Amino acid sequence: MFHVGSRSTVDLEEEITPEEDIVKSRLKEIPHNEKLLSLKYESLDYDNSENQLFLEEERRMSHMGFRCLEIRRWVICGLIGFLTGLIACLIDIAVEELAGYKYSAVKQNIEKFTEFGGLSISLILWAALNSAFVMVGAIAVAFFEPIAAGSGIPQIKCYLNGVKIPCVVRLKTLAIKVFGVICSVAGGLAVGKEGPMIHSGAVVAAGVSQGRSTSLKKDFKIFEYFRRDTEKRDFVSAGAAAGVSAAFGAPVGGVLFSLEEGASFWNQMLTWRIFFASMISTFTLNFFLSIYHGKPGELSSPGLINFGRFDSDVRGTSLCPCIKYYTFNWMLGALFNVINYWLTIFRIRLKKSMSFLHFMLQLSLSLSLSLSLSLWYIHRPCLQVMEAMLVAAVTATVAFAMIYFSNDCQPLGQDSTEEYPLQLFCADGEYNSMATAFFNTPERSVRSLFHNPPGSYNPLTLGVFTLVYFVLAVWTYGLTVSAGVFIPSLLIGAAWGRLFGILLSTITSSQSIWADPGKYALIGAAAQLGGIVRMTLSLTVIMVEATGNVTYGFPIMLVLMTAKIVGDYFIEGLYDIHIKLQSVPFLHWDAPPTSHWLTAREVMSSPVTCFNRVERVGRIVDVLSNTSTNHNGFPVVPGKICGLILRSQLIVLLKHKVFVERASSRLSQRRLQLKDFRDAYPRFPPIQSIHVSQDERECMMDLNEFMNPTPYTVPQVSYLTSTFARALNRTLLPHPAETTPNNPYMTFTDEL
Amino acid sequence: MFHVGSRSTVDLEEEITPEEDIVKSRLKEIPHNEKLLSLKYESLDYDNSENQLFLEEERRMSHMGFRCLEIRRWVICGLIGFLTGLIACLIDIAVEELAGYKYSAVKQNIEKFTEFGGLSISLILWAALNSAFVMVGAIAVAFFEPIAAGSGIPQIKCYLNGVKIPCVVRLKTLAIKVFGVICSVAGGLAVGKEGPMIHSGAVVAAGVSQGRSTSLKKDFKIFEYFRRDTEKRDFVSAGAAAGVSAAFGAPVGGVLFSLEEGASFWNQMLTWRIFFASMISTFTLNFFLSIYHGKPGELSSPGLINFGRFDSDVRGTSLCPCIKYYTFNWMLGALFNVINYWLTIFRIRLKKSMSFLHFMLQLSLSLSLSLSLSLWYIHRPCLQVMEAMLVAAVTATVAFAMIYFSNDCQPLGQDSTEEYPLQLFCADGEYNSMATAFFNTPERSVRSLFHNPPGSYNPLTLGVFTLVYFVLAVWTYGLTVSAGVFIPSLLIGAAWGRLFGILLSTITSSQSIWADPGKYALIGAAAQLGGIVRMTLSLTVIMVEATGNVTYGFPIMLVLMTAKIVGDYFIEGLYDIHIKLQSVPFLHWDAPPTSHWLTAREVMSSPVTCFNRVERVGRIVDVLSNTSTNHNGFPVVPGKICGLILRSQLIVLLKHKVFVERASSRLSQRRLQLKDFRDAYPRFPPIQSIHVSQDERECMMDLNEFMNPTPYTVPQVSYLTSTFARALNRTLLPHPAETTPNNPYMTFTDEL
Repeated sequence: MFHVGSRSTVDLEEEITPEEDIVKSRLKEIPHNEKLLSLKYESLDYDNSENQLFLEEERRMSHMGFRCLEIRRWVICGLIGFLTGLIACLIDIAVEELAGYKYSAVKQNIEKFTEFGGLSISLILWAALNSAFVMVGAIAVAFFEPIAAGSGIPQIKCYLNGVKIPCVVRLKTLAIKVFGVICSVAGGLAVGKEGPMIHSGAVVAAGVSQGRSTSLKKDFKIFEYFRRDTEKRDFVSAGAAAGVSAAFGAPVGGVLFSLEEGASFWNQMLTWRIFFASMISTFTLNFFLSIYHGKPGELSSPGLINFGRFDSDVRGTSLCPCIKYYTFNWMLGALFNVINYWLTIFRIRLKKSMSFLHFMLQLSLSLSLSLSLSLWYIHRPCLQVMEAMLVAAVTATVAFAMIYFSNDCQPLGQDSTEEYPLQLFCADGEYNSMATAFFNTPERSVRSLFHNPPGSYNPLTLGVFTLVYFVLAVWTYGLTVSAGVFIPSLLIGAAWGRLFGILLSTITSSQSIWADPGKYALIGAAAQLGGIVRMTLSLTVIMVEATGNVTYGFPIMLVLMTAKIVGDYFIEGLYDIHIKLQSVPFLHWDAPPTSHWLTAREVMSSPVTCFNRVERVGRIVDVLSNTSTNHNGFPVVPGKICGLILRSQLIVLLKHKVFVERASSRLSQRRLQLKDFRDAYPRFPPIQSIHVSQDERECMMDLNEFMNPTPYTVPQVSYLTSTFARALNRTLLPHPAETTPNNPYMTFTDEL
Repeated sequence: MFHVGSRSTVDLEEEITPEEDIVKSRLKEIPHNEKLLSLKYESLDYDNSENQLFLEEERRMSHMGFRCLEIRRWVICGLIGFLTGLIACLIDIAVEELAGYKYSAVKQNIEKFTEFGGLSISLILWAALNSAFVMVGAIAVAFFEPIAAGSGIPQIKCYLNGVKIPCVVRLKTLAIKVFGVICSVAGGLAVGKEGPMIHSGAVVAAGVSQGRSTSLKKDFKIFEYFRRDTEKRDFVSAGAAAGVSAAFGAPVGGVLFSLEEGASFWNQMLTWRIFFASMISTFTLNFFLSIYHGKPGELSSPGLINFGRFDSDVRGTSLCPCIKYYTFNWMLGALFNVINYWLTIFRIRLKKSMSFLHFMLQLSLSLSLSLSLSLWYIHRPCLQVMEAMLVAAVTATVAFAMIYFSNDCQPLGQDSTEEYPLQLFCADGEYNSMATAFFNTPERSVRSLFHNPPGSYNPLTLGVFTLVYFVLAVWTYGLTVSAGVFIPSLLIGAAWGRLFGILLSTITSSQSIWADPGKYALIGAAAQLGGIVRMTLSLTVIMVEATGNVTYGFPIMLVLMTAKIVGDYFIEGLYDIHIKLQSVPFLHWDAPPTSHWLTAREVMSSPVTCFNRVERVGRIVDVLSNTSTNHNGFPVVPGKICGLILRSQLIVLLKHKVFVERASSRLSQRRLQLKDFRDAYPRFPPIQSIHVSQDERECMMDLNEFMNPTPYTVPQVSYLTSTFARALNRTLLPHPAETTPNNPYMTFTDEL
């Protein structure tokens, strides 16, 4: 129940007392733009409106009916998993094919020109190919569906938290997202295809569970029972889990991701269904990829990213190296995060002013490009596309330069994992080590860093790679392309971790057991990723499932914990930053610990707009049209609260003209059913589109049958922390409070 | 807030209308003894009593204070994990040593007498050793702490569900439990040591988090903030998770177990702490066991049971065998459960009448034993001990007979996992195959069934073993010994699954890939265990973590799901059956789906006993002493509800004689603080032990400062399903409802 936040602050200021000064100053700390933008977002209705229509329907249902519903839920979850797996498979194959084509073409070209000189032609070819791919992807995103930009995880987090973000679960978004991510990954940007999978899974879920597509104007007339926010949310969490599962081959991690991000209320059967969807998803992906790889039935690629098998267990010959190991890991994690946070802060400044970036660009690129970039603020899609293309070209150029100037040659082994080893200036039978990292899809580079034998990389190569890739990744995330941040983070972390491991083994040359730098690469990757996204439990499980070795769980957990603690000291996680930048009224896990002196009365707004049980149509239209009472639900009162009616319900009632006067002439009017509300869900028309004549304005509307007679209430003296916990139980639901003589009604506002 | 259930049923009958007949008949279905026994159990207070004292304390706390609390929570969780791991280690080593001694002695004896005849002496030795171990364990349990019998999982389930079961988390229970489980496993009973670990972890958690031991009368004066049910419950869930983690080496499975059994409200930080405790627990166990095994630092035994490594992934050469595989698994699961349920039902009948057992015993054993067993109903500890000894002797006898009459000889391989291969009548270099299964700790037998190469077992051996072990396990579970049901279930399932696999490979001899019977053993074990305990998500994850191979997740999930669906059709899970037999008022996940016509008014009892804001001491004492108003909390009213006061709070107030009259003479009386309530927690004295003189009875008590001014309320017209969901959010908390003129107050009863 959002409404203009400023109102309640004003109320608070009017009745301010000296001792409430601290409270006031605390409230002032809320970012100024939050109030402006909170109008844009509505909350989802996670509380079933248990009105008479609903109860009649439920009572009409037999025990068998409920069982059928349950079966339908399982079928939907199976479908969600299957389709998400298929989409993941499609993305993977498309990227593989396109990147394969690109790298073979460039490789041939490089090989051709290495001997004769003229490698600049190869560079131009590479940059042009990259830019072309990225351009197509960026055009699709910028012109057709801007919400498909980025990884989509912040949006899904908000959705699961209870905030309705427009267009986030539409079919069009899905199509653009899939197309965009294929283009941007094939275009060689420092991005991953894993994040967008989570968004894709959520869209699939939202679509499948409704049994229709509003975009395609096609209604299959199935699953009508699930057309409400409560049910839809459950399926969307299943979809997000299926997405994680397909991305990382981590079904349990997917379930925990959904729980960590979305669930405040844990239900056994729901979780079990989510797990089912996740399992189906990874199985589908695995199965179809095995066919694509020509080894049908050999289920060896459960996810889009595959860390390869870590066969050696975590072990130590004595307590000492073991402790040393963990101590180093802690330091490593902390170090990563300090660095990462300095750079994250820098990143945000970057986003806000772009000044530092300009400076860098002015040095490295021509003035004209820089000028066009400074027009960024105009937010013209064309410029966004141009920036994306620029990044793609710069990425190719930088990579080429790195490879060109690198002297790190390694012998070409039999069991090498490189698919496109570049010889360049190396001797025959050797390959350029820098090219392993740059001239490859990021997934392959990560795997090489984890598994290549000690000595495959020169410390200098790794150091330079880390730095360059970091800058590229920072610049890339935030472009108008569909792209995830998981893989770049993993890659940076793995490179940095491997570098650390090499240095460590040089210092402590005696302990050969700790000399495997691949393990440090894994720990580094976990620390970097944890520092950026700040997920905890789910990320640990995802990493463990992706490595396929349970013994790595403990060190990974330790670094992730350190990463979170150190990171939170500096700044929030990347997703939270993006949510904040978009001014989404996001409800966190706990109220601020020192908010015990705030009562519900103080954070709620008054007076509240409410309706009578039988209300005049004119008043309803006026209230709904009034932008200053932009509430999502209204208490129904005759003196004391007796129900709650939602804006969407009122709009459907007005549309069908369910007036008391008309009810008497029964011939013309059929009784409104739950189906009418479901057909209008989720795109209820705005009040402006409903025409009410002057005569009709004088009619009365009986709300008794449609209001929820048992809304959640909190006494106005209850304290903020407990109110908060109760609100969280059913995230962001409407909370009219109990009646008292002085202050009749209060509703929850987004200030909380 | 439990009180005598019969009252509300009577109320319902008075106002019965024709259409409520169905409702009435439904209410009548409640088992008759539930009403009798619900008096025995109280609910835990999962809602913080936010009274003035509490708020004053919270407001006095700085931001730093809250941070310190958070750090203390982490330290406690670390300690819980560490101690749970140590206990697991102690149990494992003790069992290993004792069983090792026993089996070597018996083996030597058998080898000695195999040539000369006179194996009956070996049998007697074996039976005597078994009985001796079991006797010691059973005496400890039966005479000192009967609640330590069984696995303890039903009790922990109840505790996490919000039911206070006496003595369940006491230090004495822990000591007896640990001692008992060592004795019963070493005594060769068909039991496991995994279930009791979960109980042990929970007790450790309850003890550590309180910073004192009431049994030892030692108060360390630390962690006083955590002395209330809300906080204690969080730690107990962490302890249970640490127990699972130590038992199976499955930290994620442990977290999910806690969530599945206990949590209805998911909190990110709490879950993360639980995960931390789990990780520490498995790490501690692993570390100390590695020292015990002489390979310090080689962390290869993360849990008490170790399935060994399943290295081969689940794979199929084509779609066809893959589908066939799953189809067979489904059938397998269903078949298992049908059989298992028939036998579970039989088991309950067994528990109820013991008649079938008598019949069997009369056949197989002497009449005198049978007669003494029929005195079982008297529940004399001596007889319980005797029965346990009898079972131990019978187990040894049956095992011996099986081994003796078995002709299944297998060649002794190099990499054999058997520690005590029995040659008996086999040729040199061969061993008796039946002895692998019987003459071994059950954990080792499970591992042999999973990993021994095809052909290690004769189908007949497996069939007979399954049958015999099933009967033994059924008889054993329910004895007065500390014992888990996980390992016997796994063992039966593994034997049966392996048998099925062998038969299958005989029929479809062409597909050699599916010929590994070890996989069928794993699936069978999962199905059997799932059918008995009916856990879903957590069990899948536990099995996956214990096998260390993620690809087995999908088939395991499918069989567990089938097991649950098929099983639920026949009867509830074993733990639920035991909870029901003990008449615990357990709150399930959902209200019955067809309960939409019931409103809160109909299931609540009226009139409600309530107090005024300032109440006469005499009335309070009378109400608390009255057994028919055995409530746990009382609404405080002046006309309309304004707070809730708990029985325990009233008792503390009475004990400290906080009367209005005394407050005026301030000299003698210090103000009551939160500390006084915490010191009395959790063993509040009964009302009978508090002496109130006749003069004092006329004093008044001011409840304003101590009552919770913001209890949860539901409107009395709200429907049962939603009321149920809201109750579950904070399991089993007191729910006084809103006032209406007709029916002033209502409280939740255990009928729900």
